[in-house]
Amino acid sequence: MPDFNSNVEITCGSLPASQKIYIPGTLHPDIRVPMREISVHPTAGEPPVRVYDPSGPYTETDVKIDIRQGLPRLRRSWAAHGKDVQAYQGRKIELADNGVAQGTRHAVEAFPKVHMSLRANGVNAVTQLACARAGMITPEMEFVAIRENLGRAAAAKARDRDGQSFGAAIPDFVTPEFVRDEIARGRAVIPANINHPEAEPMIIGRNFLVKINANIGNSAVTSSMEEEVEKMVWATRWGVDTVMDLSTGRNIHNIREWIIRNSPVPIGTVPLYQALEKVDGIAENLTWEVYRDTLIEQAEQGVDYFTIHAGLRLHHIPLTVNRVTGIVSRGGSIMAKWCLHHHRESFLYERFAEICDICRAYDVTFSLGDGLRPGSIADANDAAQFAELETLGELTQIAWAKDCQVMIEGPGHVPMHKIKHNMDKQLEVCREAPFYTLGPLTTDIAPGYDHITSGIGAAMIGWFGTAMLCYVTPKEHLGLPDRDDVKTGVITYKIAAHAADLAKGHPAAQIRDDALSRARFEFRWEDQFNLSLDPETARSFHDQTLPRDAHKVAHFCSMCGPKFCSMRISHDIRADARKEGMAAMAEKYRDGGDLYMVQNAMPSDQ
Amino acid sequence: MPDFNSNVEITCGSLPASQKIYIPGTLHPDIRVPMREISVHPTAGEPPVRVYDPSGPYTETDVKIDIRQGLPRLRRSWAAHGKDVQAYQGRKIELADNGVAQGTRHAVEAFPKVHMSLRANGVNAVTQLACARAGMITPEMEFVAIRENLGRAAAAKARDRDGQSFGAAIPDFVTPEFVRDEIARGRAVIPANINHPEAEPMIIGRNFLVKINANIGNSAVTSSMEEEVEKMVWATRWGVDTVMDLSTGRNIHNIREWIIRNSPVPIGTVPLYQALEKVDGIAENLTWEVYRDTLIEQAEQGVDYFTIHAGLRLHHIPLTVNRVTGIVSRGGSIMAKWCLHHHRESFLYERFAEICDICRAYDVTFSLGDGLRPGSIADANDAAQFAELETLGELTQIAWAKDCQVMIEGPGHVPMHKIKHNMDKQLEVCREAPFYTLGPLTTDIAPGYDHITSGIGAAMIGWFGTAMLCYVTPKEHLGLPDRDDVKTGVITYKIAAHAADLAKGHPAAQIRDDALSRARFEFRWEDQFNLSLDPETARSFHDQTLPRDAHKVAHFCSMCGPKFCSMRISHDIRADARKEGMAAMAEKYRDGGDLYMVQNAMPSDQ
Repeated sequence: MPDFNSNVEITCGSLPASQKIYIPGTLHPDIRVPMREISVHPTAGEPPVRVYDPSGPYTETDVKIDIRQGLPRLRRSWAAHGKDVQAYQGRKIELADNGVAQGTRHAVEAFPKVHMSLRANGVNAVTQLACARAGMITPEMEFVAIRENLGRAAAAKARDRDGQSFGAAIPDFVTPEFVRDEIARGRAVIPANINHPEAEPMIIGRNFLVKINANIGNSAVTSSMEEEVEKMVWATRWGVDTVMDLSTGRNIHNIREWIIRNSPVPIGTVPLYQALEKVDGIAENLTWEVYRDTLIEQAEQGVDYFTIHAGLRLHHIPLTVNRVTGIVSRGGSIMAKWCLHHHRESFLYERFAEICDICRAYDVTFSLGDGLRPGSIADANDAAQFAELETLGELTQIAWAKDCQVMIEGPGHVPMHKIKHNMDKQLEVCREAPFYTLGPLTTDIAPGYDHITSGIGAAMIGWFGTAMLCYVTPKEHLGLPDRDDVKTGVITYKIAAHAADLAKGHPAAQIRDDALSRARFEFRWEDQFNLSLDPETARSFHDQTLPRDAHKVAHFCSMCGPKFCSMRISHDIRADARKEGMAAMAEKYRDGGDLYMVQNAMPSDQ
Repeated sequence: MPDFNSNVEITCGSLPASQKIYIPGTLHPDIRVPMREISVHPTAGEPPVRVYDPSGPYTETDVKIDIRQGLPRLRRSWAAHGKDVQAYQGRKIELADNGVAQGTRHAVEAFPKVHMSLRANGVNAVTQLACARAGMITPEMEFVAIRENLGRAAAAKARDRDGQSFGAAIPDFVTPEFVRDEIARGRAVIPANINHPEAEPMIIGRNFLVKINANIGNSAVTSSMEEEVEKMVWATRWGVDTVMDLSTGRNIHNIREWIIRNSPVPIGTVPLYQALEKVDGIAENLTWEVYRDTLIEQAEQGVDYFTIHAGLRLHHIPLTVNRVTGIVSRGGSIMAKWCLHHHRESFLYERFAEICDICRAYDVTFSLGDGLRPGSIADANDAAQFAELETLGELTQIAWAKDCQVMIEGPGHVPMHKIKHNMDKQLEVCREAPFYTLGPLTTDIAPGYDHITSGIGAAMIGWFGTAMLCYVTPKEHLGLPDRDDVKTGVITYKIAAHAADLAKGHPAAQIRDDALSRARFEFRWEDQFNLSLDPETARSFHDQTLPRDAHKVAHFCSMCGPKFCSMRISHDIRADARKEGMAAMAEKYRDGGDLYMVQNAMPSDQ
């Protein structure tokens, strides 16, 4: 990510007109749920607008961040697990964990603080799923209930429920018990490794707000830990709910440690990438032992969810041979190569129960990978894709039986008319485990704009029921995203997720739209900027043509100028109407009336 | 549009690896239908890819353009109308037609060539609709049939029809007779004023490819004719099918003349804007006489379609009073103000039959304006919006009775779950007259990104049946679009329209996706760039990380690097499979078989 390279500073400070507030728990009084409150101009006579805020301490006013300390380990004190966990000295870090990097100028230094690792002590499972099944409402569950409930009390008073949810069960209010029940049923997950206590809990499920993920990864050229942490902070600043660290090559262990210790959001990885580095990038040299070792390494660090491509089985591979774009998932292609070379079933599939045991010990959530997702419109919804999806459904049952939380990865390139079928089939074969999709991209012909080709598909599949959307940046298919690309990808996916929330009928989803639209109609330009997803861009676009402060209260903009401003005219109309009495006017003019009989163009003339 | 200001040159020349070809007519041998042919690398062993091309002579190789000459008046010689039209000396240009601009440094010079105007001689109608009803296949109809038919012969051989068209009647092949029939039924329009013979015919209808429109308009600061022509040329270069000139203020007549004389695509206007200028911007001073005069002025110049806000009736206005954003259509708010001031029914509604008579004499297509479109999510699909839509349905019948072509304007801000209802209601009340929608924007919270909020809605409503999508640029709600914004808006809407074509199942729509995906899979980078909607951007994004020529044939890209490239691994797998015999392999591995029995993680274990 070239733009991150030079003079990296961690982006801190509040967004415009915003401050963080914290809502305490009731069942668990020691939890404090962060929200962002955006104030509006006093003339509006409106309360501040509260919005969902995954950005962590970085966006507090006047915050001081020291990434060498890491974020406060807030969940450690919640200690719901108590006697079911044990602290232990984790696996020793080996040279291979960081590739060949050692003592050279390319080495990323180790995170300076070493924490003991935690794991279940082998008696009771400590996963959120196990707790939910046992009827326990964990602090994490109450935390996400408060988060998701934002604005619902006001919304319930303000309007009737609206939307089309395609069979989702979105409640008027999100109670901790509802959260518990959704997790117990496998319909939602809280990715929260017990070794990542810095993260603020968040929930992924079809009956909750649609979430988004951003992928980051180290640059092939050079990396510093500030640079890597900044990528994560930058993405969360604009609203991502989880971050996947897809780093490859050198320093992979140390980079991940810096990210996790400083991340307020769950971190996902594809452990296969690091395992492959440990065998020098030669797929056929992968072994279960190397892979298992990598899982434990990452689980001890605190990775919250693992993409595991265990659904790609040996007999699926021939189904890809006549595809236009073959296998486009990196993990999928690596495993396919391994399977073919050894003429063996995938060790990920064969060892799946053992993988579950590891995930269970740390509460690492499964993100069952779609190694056979389509890479082109031509390959969408084909036999290979759906054969793998069915295997993912089988694996879901295994993981659930082991008390592991599960989500399912999906789409890729899918034209609009084939999107819903993906969602419906996933709900059916994976029994409503949360769906987590890349896009989908709705056409192949626009490299350079694939945030948009995929934003279209993401909004739709989010509406249909996908719980988390993996972003796509403008550089997809072409190169490494820079800082601006990451932001563009995140904002595009915030749009898609929010459009989906509106369409699903989440009770409070429309509050921010309404507040911004009122600001727009009342020419409160500052409020319009501040309430938007990207205040900086909105303001700078406005100021390109009307830079002066006086224009921030002007009752027009540069698009039409004062004479043509429809909103200003609308205000004039309302003022007139107030004088006239609009109700009387409406009556008088109803259906033309005699007074205003049209002269020569009545439909009846024809 | 600030960036157009300085040193304006008209953008000319072919796109990368592209050349124009022309397909002659059969019924009308003098027509030549332009297409763009994109060549691919010889190693691909594939024919060039032909794409729809509305950009006119400007994208010919080595073209010389002189905007003082205007484009060739190609349709003049087709002379289908013959004895039914008469040439006459048009209305004298008055000072008011150009505002106060005269002899000052702000004046835009008049277009140097004066053409006689044409109009119907009052016996037979000369509209495409009248011709279609009379059973006549005009040159325009054959022209668009050839255009729309692009690739269908090959597609029919290559695959079965795919897609979900929601009741549209998309044919395997587009014959001139099919075009005639669709126009006769009112389901499609060819906007083609007999005074705009420079334009290449194009068709707008639910059973044809989805089209897009870009709005341009003069800058408040300064304008030259080169600048205004360049805006139009620039937009068509990236694929817009029609352009609306929404200029206001000074020089409005002369600017429009320069644009029309140089435009290969149909030009639309909102005549009300110029009429308002003629009464110094005071809405209540508008009169039928000033408006009628403006219609004739613009019809004589060759405007191909008029937005007429005749559906906003007096008794609709009270329906807007409790809206969050009132009336957001400029034309709608002007007419509402007029109606309220005079306490009278809209003169556009009352005089609609007379307006039809004018449009009929020149074949100006109606674009019946949605003065009450919603400007916020809160106002979507409300009583005001749909009351007006029903009036538009009435007016459609009147216009059809007068042999006038009609399309209907729609959406604005509409959340995803309310989009389809708009389309269905429009089809019903307007009896399948083509729908032409702005966006819709699927949320209000992203000013600065409304090309994306609306691109989502545009793709969906295009799929559901909208025939033409009016673009939205990133500057929407904030300021005037510059050159880059126009391009971004156009490409975004090309994506939306194409995604809709794919989903509707247009027989040849997928050809370009498939060609680009094959190029991607075979690491033909140059082909991937050239086949994309925006080759310049695709190339520059790639070159930011891998600039060297050698990388244009590299079997990897900067995203994953060589070790992780899934596509390269896919090729390895195919090579292996070829040795093995994939069919045998598939058989051997079916459902695991005995040989590959999983060891400890079979689903049956659970």
